[in-house]
Amino acid sequence: MEPEVITSLQNPRVKQLVKLRDRRPRDAAGQFLVEGYRQIRRALDKGFAPVELYFSPEWFPGDQGNEPELIAAAAAAGARIYQLNKSAFAKVAYRERPDGLLAVLPQWRHTLDDLALSPMPFLLVVEAIEKPGNLGTILRSADAAGVDGLIVCDPVTDLFNPNVVRASTGVVFSVPVVIAESGAVRAWLRDRGIRSVATTPAATILHTDMNLTGPMAIVMGSEQYGLSDDWLREADDKVRIPMAGQADSLNVAMATIITLFEAVRQRA
Amino acid sequence: MEPEVITSLQNPRVKQLVKLRDRRPRDAAGQFLVEGYRQIRRALDKGFAPVELYFSPEWFPGDQGNEPELIAAAAAAGARIYQLNKSAFAKVAYRERPDGLLAVLPQWRHTLDDLALSPMPFLLVVEAIEKPGNLGTILRSADAAGVDGLIVCDPVTDLFNPNVVRASTGVVFSVPVVIAESGAVRAWLRDRGIRSVATTPAATILHTDMNLTGPMAIVMGSEQYGLSDDWLREADDKVRIPMAGQADSLNVAMATIITLFEAVRQRA
Repeated sequence: MEPEVITSLQNPRVKQLVKLRDRRPRDAAGQFLVEGYRQIRRALDKGFAPVELYFSPEWFPGDQGNEPELIAAAAAAGARIYQLNKSAFAKVAYRERPDGLLAVLPQWRHTLDDLALSPMPFLLVVEAIEKPGNLGTILRSADAAGVDGLIVCDPVTDLFNPNVVRASTGVVFSVPVVIAESGAVRAWLRDRGIRSVATTPAATILHTDMNLTGPMAIVMGSEQYGLSDDWLREADDKVRIPMAGQADSLNVAMATIITLFEAVRQRA
Repeated sequence: MEPEVITSLQNPRVKQLVKLRDRRPRDAAGQFLVEGYRQIRRALDKGFAPVELYFSPEWFPGDQGNEPELIAAAAAAGARIYQLNKSAFAKVAYRERPDGLLAVLPQWRHTLDDLALSPMPFLLVVEAIEKPGNLGTILRSADAAGVDGLIVCDPVTDLFNPNVVRASTGVVFSVPVVIAESGAVRAWLRDRGIRSVATTPAATILHTDMNLTGPMAIVMGSEQYGLSDDWLREADDKVRIPMAGQADSLNVAMATIITLFEAVRQRA
């Protein structure tokens, strides 16, 4: 069966794809955008089925690509398939260099109790991260470090923001992410005997001098304000990263990588 | 003395400022752009005097700011001062949210022999980094880790690219950076008894199991190709970072942070 070809920029599907870049319509639809071969491939590989897949051969980077196979796999997973002409795809693409593939996936919500904890829980908690790029990088770090999950407290940035999804290079499909309120997270950690270790420049102990083994959650603050007073007061331990240069050389994503991989070293 | 006020988008100075975004005119002029209060402040604090400073009060973020003091400091350091109206400044600004301050500084070139080595040399070598944002992040990591210097081999990205300068948050004024050819760098390191430790996913030894103390240079490859065969063959040691998740979760900037801070831990 030949797919429908959309050519009009006024087509309701084209308009809806553009709307999904913004949070309110995204949440109303309960869906989000995943653009590009690699990320759609990762979604499929992890068992996430697109609702819709849009393709535009005029944007495919090569002639003999594996796009047809991806489109077939999405269709087999239940996605409705639509073809767009060049200008219609230009309108719906948000990447700088589109590759002619855009999928719509259903959003999901995990709760704290959905988290599958390993025998020695290892979690990352971040508070109110503002920049999509930082949240994406933090997701990648969490994946590389092998945490059981990422808990985002009191989020400012939506996990399903297209820039978070893109910056995460598909990790959004592999690292379990829970959105929760800070107080609830602290109670949940306490109930499970999971120690919270907060990173703050005000700490006296270096992260490398702290025991980061055992059931543990590393807690990172927001870009601009650091950790809230509640977290600073109630964290079981506080550590800082040694800084040789200017005070703001490490941003929150960089500090997260450093702390996570020190924990990986100690836990090996 | 009132400064000259530039209002025409055809003004030769306005045109030259736009040209300085591109490498060829930037190199021809031997100058580069530094935008924003914080970065110009850092240049001045580190003794780098602007040749020219452009300001536009209509873009200042507040009424009672410290811009006048910065402008006076730049003038005292020898900068020619020019005022721009709102539209002229909009044309020369390259940041998303301009704050009404833009400086032109002279470029510099350091050679390997300019590097002031500490008694226990600690260097970072990067090969052919392509993305300005990655080079800026690597500069920040180098600053935070307190290396003696950053050596950029066979550069693809210009150190004075405005996006590198911006992403470095002013570190370009504090970390000594040398641009050099890979073979010359290897000979220079060998002559000084500085061990090279290359990071590559193909290594068998984890970075945390390698001795990273003593006179040492950490060597990182490019985003797309990793380290060149010459570096992989001639490096004294090779290490890899353990990866729990998908293979590409750590980009070169993230891998650099992890390796540098493991060295900092061992060298403390």
